[in-house]
Amino acid sequence: MKSSALSKLGQRTEAPPISWLMQLTLDRPNLISLAAGFTDNESLPVEETRELLNEILASPRSGRAALQYGTTAGDPHLRHLTADRLWKLDSAAETNHSASADDVAHSRRDGRKARRPRFVAAREIYSPERVVITSGSQQFLYMLTECLCDPGDIVLVEDPTYFVYLGIAQSHGFSCRGIRMESDGIDLLHLEQTLEGLRRRGELKRVKLLYLVSYSQNPTGITTSFGRKSGALATLKRFERAAGHPIYLLEDAAYRELRFAGDDVASGLAAEGGDERVIYTGIYSKPFATGARVGFGILPKPLLTVVSRVKANHDFGTSNLLQQLLSRAIASCRYESHLPELRRRYAAKAAVMTRAMHDHFPAEVRWQEPRGGLYVWARCPKPVKSGLNSGLFQNALKRGVLYVPGELCYAKDPNRRTPNHEMRLSFGSASAADIRTGIARLGATLHELL
Amino acid sequence: MKSSALSKLGQRTEAPPISWLMQLTLDRPNLISLAAGFTDNESLPVEETRELLNEILASPRSGRAALQYGTTAGDPHLRHLTADRLWKLDSAAETNHSASADDVAHSRRDGRKARRPRFVAAREIYSPERVVITSGSQQFLYMLTECLCDPGDIVLVEDPTYFVYLGIAQSHGFSCRGIRMESDGIDLLHLEQTLEGLRRRGELKRVKLLYLVSYSQNPTGITTSFGRKSGALATLKRFERAAGHPIYLLEDAAYRELRFAGDDVASGLAAEGGDERVIYTGIYSKPFATGARVGFGILPKPLLTVVSRVKANHDFGTSNLLQQLLSRAIASCRYESHLPELRRRYAAKAAVMTRAMHDHFPAEVRWQEPRGGLYVWARCPKPVKSGLNSGLFQNALKRGVLYVPGELCYAKDPNRRTPNHEMRLSFGSASAADIRTGIARLGATLHELL
Repeated sequence: MKSSALSKLGQRTEAPPISWLMQLTLDRPNLISLAAGFTDNESLPVEETRELLNEILASPRSGRAALQYGTTAGDPHLRHLTADRLWKLDSAAETNHSASADDVAHSRRDGRKARRPRFVAAREIYSPERVVITSGSQQFLYMLTECLCDPGDIVLVEDPTYFVYLGIAQSHGFSCRGIRMESDGIDLLHLEQTLEGLRRRGELKRVKLLYLVSYSQNPTGITTSFGRKSGALATLKRFERAAGHPIYLLEDAAYRELRFAGDDVASGLAAEGGDERVIYTGIYSKPFATGARVGFGILPKPLLTVVSRVKANHDFGTSNLLQQLLSRAIASCRYESHLPELRRRYAAKAAVMTRAMHDHFPAEVRWQEPRGGLYVWARCPKPVKSGLNSGLFQNALKRGVLYVPGELCYAKDPNRRTPNHEMRLSFGSASAADIRTGIARLGATLHELL
Repeated sequence: MKSSALSKLGQRTEAPPISWLMQLTLDRPNLISLAAGFTDNESLPVEETRELLNEILASPRSGRAALQYGTTAGDPHLRHLTADRLWKLDSAAETNHSASADDVAHSRRDGRKARRPRFVAAREIYSPERVVITSGSQQFLYMLTECLCDPGDIVLVEDPTYFVYLGIAQSHGFSCRGIRMESDGIDLLHLEQTLEGLRRRGELKRVKLLYLVSYSQNPTGITTSFGRKSGALATLKRFERAAGHPIYLLEDAAYRELRFAGDDVASGLAAEGGDERVIYTGIYSKPFATGARVGFGILPKPLLTVVSRVKANHDFGTSNLLQQLLSRAIASCRYESHLPELRRRYAAKAAVMTRAMHDHFPAEVRWQEPRGGLYVWARCPKPVKSGLNSGLFQNALKRGVLYVPGELCYAKDPNRRTPNHEMRLSFGSASAADIRTGIARLGATLHELL
């Protein structure tokens, strides 16, 4: 086929890097994959899902409603439950926030004293009218970004970030700028410097959003503090006049429910300006049943109107059956009561992984203990490369263990070299025994190289 | 919000015309809607779906597989079943085709004798490797078009056509050219003239595809004959050299399973050149359970690769639970055995509608008896306008009945005035009693005007 039949998007879109890793796993059944972002198979609520679906399909009335088309923006009940749940989560997190001193202590590197971030959430922000239900949060990320950015636009992302979001950007011809991370979120000074640099070069009008994976981030596990979110919002605001348009904070909370240590943090919606500038997306399937892909976005009404129009062209509504399943799971508290068990499992598996890393990895390899999510982010000493063509990756593969090379999680940012000495190690889907064996194999490979 | 924060796509995308009609229905509970394309509520297989889901979720093994992520291109078993089923449908249709004379009799208006269209389907075309599973066929239409067309490109569509496809085109900034319809599909001479006109104006390089809703078309109910598909493929082929790239036939078979009279027709895949140029999309949810949104595309491998990459960014795979549901429905023959009952219901409702039209409509209103699908396409005599602002529409609304104005189904084609004297009347979701009352009300409105 002559390639000219394809659109620019069609020509541009690359194979997702992860697809090659997945193929490796399929081709070698004995390979231990610490690469896949799959959830823990044994945690999947088969019995609960069966019960819920039986309840929905027990009567023709509720059954038919679930098997018929719904509306584009989503099931009204699920939109209501979503808004309500988020309000409760953020309100509860505010209590933690008030009690904790970390945000207050957070001072800026430039020496200016940081204002204590204010929790200003109003009930109206958490309105069902501001919620759209999507096929996973991934679909929301796609549609939202498509509604805001044109080819050539610049997206600000964490450095490193969720690689599928980088795929969306690559596909659409957006360029990315990576904002450095600290232990509790993005480096606000670097954000400011980056925006200032873009302003000086007259490129600020091409910046529409900053994308943050704010809870137990994929890949680093870092949770962004409320202070960082407030700070980021304030920083973005300062550059809006020069940009000539709003600059949004797109907050991806995919791993919020998978926290197993520490306190929850309120979303950016609760921060000053969050009502108008924060676009929050979350997911119900990952903390419940990944095979039932239901996610949501909560966003300013004018933007929601645009996203809903675009969704009408994408699929005119997410599967009603799946929405009813999640509605009922939440309303019946089965969703909520599944979470503690899920967190217990992931906490245990994370502990297995980090204990094994302590036992088997050379002392030079560093990581932060995960407090949620599915990943440990391990940093090798600089001389050790971890990329697809590196000795580490290839030797690990020979020993039968797979990880995600850190370089895949970095945007192609012209302002820095892509770091290539890190590994994303997932404790999500592998069994405890496989985690131990996999880490031991990886440790042996590392020792060989160091 | 300043609109400049939006992308061009975000700015361009209009509210789907149908959303206003849907809102009318919600606002006036006593309104009889002959507008909605919803399926028959009582036909929805609540009990079968419950059984199937219970089977899937009966054991942890099969249950967990359904509740876990799958692969982007779809469940291998469902891809296999899809390819296999289509092969069987097309092979069976070939028998009808050989037996029928209509294709042979089909002669061209320009006087040249038409070649008898050849059924050349090879088993390899119906390969699981050429199948991608999507969230309804709508998602496939979106992704495929996005992969082929750039803003400014020209899409050839039937005149009239499926209005949500027009929404995709409008949103992306494609312009459309409408190809006139005859009683068994597009006017091949008009297709040729249109392509020739585009060639002369140097615009052929902007043409990537011809979109046909080839079975019981939405909105006209017309089924495209195999001869027309073969003819369209041959015509497109002749202009490829001038275009400089392939021109595809995108065949939307959403209503293929909803045929209740006449014989099935083989898809364009079975025609000469169909292996390389036909992109076929179908849907499992509409003939089974609309709330379980599962559709598919079957297309040339290089294109499938591109669509799969784009799907990885959209959602990295359709809900595994829904895919397993459809897999099992097909494999267990519950899908197949549901179809006769469904067809019987729609045949009966179509008969109720056309009988009521005979009884209540003025003789000047014309229509073709539907042989499948969900719609009757009624043509008023030219002086009667049917648009949203017309006396007919407004008076019908006052009497409590809603239809889809024909003008919404026409592309904005600079080469002709948009016809505005037709109505799409759906017998899909309304009850037989409501169909009778609705048609009587509409008939009274028409009599008033004529």
